[in-house]
Amino acid sequence: MNKPFQTFDEQSDASQCPPRLTALRTELRRRGIDGFLIPRADEHQGEYVPKRAERLAWLTGFTGSAGIAAVLLEKAAIFVDGRYTLQVRNQTDTSLFETLDIANDGLANWIEANLPKGATLGYDPWLHTQAAIERLRSSVERAGGSIVPLSTNPLDAVWPDQPEPPRARAVPHPMELAGESSQSKRTRLAADLEKRGVDAAVLTLPDSICWLLNIRGADVPHTPFALSFALLHSDASVDLFMDPKKSSPELITHLGNQVRLRAPDEFGAALDGMADKSVLADPVWVSGFVFDRLEKAGARIVRAADPCQLPKACKNEVELAGTRKAHIRDGRALSRFLAWFAREAPKGSLTEIDAVEKLEEFRRATGGLKDLSFDSISGAGPHGAVVHYRVTRKTNRKIEPGQLFLIDSGAQFVDGTTDVTRTVAVGEPSAEMRDRFTRVLKGHIQLALAKFPEGTTGAQLDAFARRPLWDVGLDYGHGTGHGVGSYLSVHEGPQSISQRGTAQALKAGMICSNEPGYYKTGEYGIRIENLVVVREAEDIPGGEKKMLGFETITRAPIDLNLVEISMLSEEERDWLNAYHASVRAAVAPALANDADARAWLEEATRAI
Amino acid sequence: MNKPFQTFDEQSDASQCPPRLTALRTELRRRGIDGFLIPRADEHQGEYVPKRAERLAWLTGFTGSAGIAAVLLEKAAIFVDGRYTLQVRNQTDTSLFETLDIANDGLANWIEANLPKGATLGYDPWLHTQAAIERLRSSVERAGGSIVPLSTNPLDAVWPDQPEPPRARAVPHPMELAGESSQSKRTRLAADLEKRGVDAAVLTLPDSICWLLNIRGADVPHTPFALSFALLHSDASVDLFMDPKKSSPELITHLGNQVRLRAPDEFGAALDGMADKSVLADPVWVSGFVFDRLEKAGARIVRAADPCQLPKACKNEVELAGTRKAHIRDGRALSRFLAWFAREAPKGSLTEIDAVEKLEEFRRATGGLKDLSFDSISGAGPHGAVVHYRVTRKTNRKIEPGQLFLIDSGAQFVDGTTDVTRTVAVGEPSAEMRDRFTRVLKGHIQLALAKFPEGTTGAQLDAFARRPLWDVGLDYGHGTGHGVGSYLSVHEGPQSISQRGTAQALKAGMICSNEPGYYKTGEYGIRIENLVVVREAEDIPGGEKKMLGFETITRAPIDLNLVEISMLSEEERDWLNAYHASVRAAVAPALANDADARAWLEEATRAI
Repeated sequence: MNKPFQTFDEQSDASQCPPRLTALRTELRRRGIDGFLIPRADEHQGEYVPKRAERLAWLTGFTGSAGIAAVLLEKAAIFVDGRYTLQVRNQTDTSLFETLDIANDGLANWIEANLPKGATLGYDPWLHTQAAIERLRSSVERAGGSIVPLSTNPLDAVWPDQPEPPRARAVPHPMELAGESSQSKRTRLAADLEKRGVDAAVLTLPDSICWLLNIRGADVPHTPFALSFALLHSDASVDLFMDPKKSSPELITHLGNQVRLRAPDEFGAALDGMADKSVLADPVWVSGFVFDRLEKAGARIVRAADPCQLPKACKNEVELAGTRKAHIRDGRALSRFLAWFAREAPKGSLTEIDAVEKLEEFRRATGGLKDLSFDSISGAGPHGAVVHYRVTRKTNRKIEPGQLFLIDSGAQFVDGTTDVTRTVAVGEPSAEMRDRFTRVLKGHIQLALAKFPEGTTGAQLDAFARRPLWDVGLDYGHGTGHGVGSYLSVHEGPQSISQRGTAQALKAGMICSNEPGYYKTGEYGIRIENLVVVREAEDIPGGEKKMLGFETITRAPIDLNLVEISMLSEEERDWLNAYHASVRAAVAPALANDADARAWLEEATRAI
Repeated sequence: MNKPFQTFDEQSDASQCPPRLTALRTELRRRGIDGFLIPRADEHQGEYVPKRAERLAWLTGFTGSAGIAAVLLEKAAIFVDGRYTLQVRNQTDTSLFETLDIANDGLANWIEANLPKGATLGYDPWLHTQAAIERLRSSVERAGGSIVPLSTNPLDAVWPDQPEPPRARAVPHPMELAGESSQSKRTRLAADLEKRGVDAAVLTLPDSICWLLNIRGADVPHTPFALSFALLHSDASVDLFMDPKKSSPELITHLGNQVRLRAPDEFGAALDGMADKSVLADPVWVSGFVFDRLEKAGARIVRAADPCQLPKACKNEVELAGTRKAHIRDGRALSRFLAWFAREAPKGSLTEIDAVEKLEEFRRATGGLKDLSFDSISGAGPHGAVVHYRVTRKTNRKIEPGQLFLIDSGAQFVDGTTDVTRTVAVGEPSAEMRDRFTRVLKGHIQLALAKFPEGTTGAQLDAFARRPLWDVGLDYGHGTGHGVGSYLSVHEGPQSISQRGTAQALKAGMICSNEPGYYKTGEYGIRIENLVVVREAEDIPGGEKKMLGFETITRAPIDLNLVEISMLSEEERDWLNAYHASVRAAVAPALANDADARAWLEEATRAI
């Protein structure tokens, strides 16, 4: 068997905190700096970062996907969001690091309260976005200190065995998967830059560059990024700053002669060359390093959204056809898994890790698995209520009769990225579990059925998924849907279906998750997640507006043992039956050699 | 009979545009200015302004409630929102004024395209908010011009018979209506300022000052504002800059010795006195004049929301009890009107103006009417589809059998402000009308029934009201709900239930409208509007969250002739029957002397 994509070892060791923190402080004193900020970020601001950029984990032991530490000479703190409040306390040395909530300006307030007057707070300008630095600067100034970019990272100086930057081979993402040539993408984006009087756009988001150039890589876990920087010029040419070791003759041919491959360390000098040019950079995503350098160079900076993000999110028909195929393939694996689980789990000896390993095995058996799109969340009983639970050998639980089991997982196939959550009952569920599950399902269906006019944002639709829970005083503490890439990141913008959401309207071709849930702390968790594609709705007789709607593309049974049929409206029941019929039609033929699984599927997708 | 609150004369005469525009341009040339901006606004940024501030109407003929004109030496344009696109073309001289959409930076783009390089664009700093000026400044600078505040308004210089500022008597709003003393309000707001390190807050919004000091006035139509400026200090004292002619011994006693009454022309000097003080001012509402003056004085400006707006929006129990009484009183008048209409309209001789006059008569007959809360919108047939239609002698239409008739109206009573829309069928409505009406009603009921957790914004709920229309490809082009004052403005913030909404969460005690609609241009309009109060929802067994919900307070029948009962869910039908029972219970006793109206009411509110 190949090396597994998911492992279960503790990745963190708080006993390393004291010597490492001491070493960092010694380095800060040597440089005459009074403090330093360590974000969980690399130069590209993606969700997954290479090992080399896991500075926050190295220093604090905290391995979550978001957070920042502030180290002063006498005090230190780590800031994480609500998902990680418990985890950070388990992972770090709390005698050294105060653990605080990052929400409500936690970091800014802490700096204002703790930074000594006249102190100098350092930061690595590559690792913070311009917007983040601007917010921090005013806090530091209110504290009477100053915030200064450091030309080299002091933590790197004291991390003896810091890994090298990744140099995985970048490969072309072919036309039959991308559906539009890089030439075509570059030309239409360049025309728009030209129209706006912009000479060039700085791109540092890896999904933007991979999409624009139709390339993929393997520099970080779970996401096929080829890390690089780029300048897109208004003549549709591109300077691509990427380690030449990642290249190949095939890649050079693919990129063509409008894309100049240059070494990453030439990026700064290229920015210096933008004097008097009008240069677009997105302060929400592009690092302070780039902004400082452009400013010093005398460029006219146009602060605007990364021009790749919206077109990348609106998938073309080729990408959609690919992702539909990927979802049927994934549904096959998931259906085999669920059939296996239905047979084995009642015996009472399965563990959360067993489930993850078995599901990875079924996904590998499809023949096309490039990676998991994230570490599977496999939560039995109370672990299901931990929204971002990640099982380790230490936390691994038996899955027991009477429990709910929640599994949230996804795959990276070259034709599409999947993300799906199913919650299943082991043995007989309680009436409360059925009630809650049915409410989550009703919300899921109400969102899936929604039709809405062009211009509608995800924030306007989010409450459709919550209403059945709201009706009885319940809710869930996360967004209802995030964007999903096309063999790219499993979490992508600019759209979102959530309480606060973004100003971005939903547009045809966007892929989103639809994942309401309900979590009863200490008892169980429920989440039902399908991916949906935003599509133009069919014409309605008498309709006046061009309406959009959702096409559900995930293909896996929803546990009917948890559905209280009498709570469904006729429309909801029709949706569920039609959905299950579509699962059966897509998945059953592939189970021809597995009579047990096939029989299970027929039963699991029966009309109710 | 008293002077009517609503009149029907044309208030606009485009033939005056040429000489007035010429006079203004002459004045601009005399001053060496290349252009001037004329917003439809006074120094207080309220929705209704005194006659003296109707500069936009005087110059352009346009009488809508929002808009701005830009006058250059060779070109001029007027910018209005979608509501007024047609009206502005009818009212102004389009050979002089280009009529453009204010949305999507219409004004900014026009300035960039038309302001000559090096030109000086003047503005009256009293009439533009700081936020508006900041937006304008960057457009003007991009055009290579400069934007300058003028110390006197050039339009006032050429408006020979410009009315004087209003000087209506200000009166105390007594405790039995306000429910909280001004002392108490000032003390709690001052404590918050103190906590935030703020020495004083500048107040220029009339509803903020009237609420804070428990005073009302009559300076503008339809809204009991006493126009003034104020400084709220962190010791809970107030400098109130209000024309002494508006005062009285009774008012002085009411204000007490913590409120210093000063002449309006001392306001500027008071701002000058804030050197080194920390002064809160809301850039969204406070004029550029104030910001400029504070800056020059060397004050530390704290840009933050007007501190009165949120507490003012959250009504106390006394205010809510008052508004419920006001709504029952108003429901009586409206029910008598609807009974009269049901009897008279089928005869085919009523006009839109007849309806407005009759409704005002019934409202006056309640004995407590202080004013209408806005000019009634009385639209027969196609006029119902004009969302902000205002009938004049020229546009007045007969109300004919087969039509829908829409009437949107409200009253100012000392104990509450009302706003209600009913749509009724004259004769037999078509199946399409019944379908559309029932969808609007379903949306109205779904919003009325919504329960939602604390922290939910109106923007998150808005789609509940639209969904039954969205389902068949229809929608309406306005928000679903606005805030409503307590014997104050009929449109108030900071909350709103609309597509884009605001970041303000709905809070217990807020009054909002619930007014979905549907408009078929050239044929008919439908709107169903009740006011609702945000309330804590009753505890739900098993519920985990503190939920909020709505209490509907408007009391008037909804036309059952337009309801297609089979389209209602059981829950919706129950709501409608319970609502009608509450209308009957509240209104029937007051119709004891009017057997006809009472009989009509019984029938109109029957259970279905």
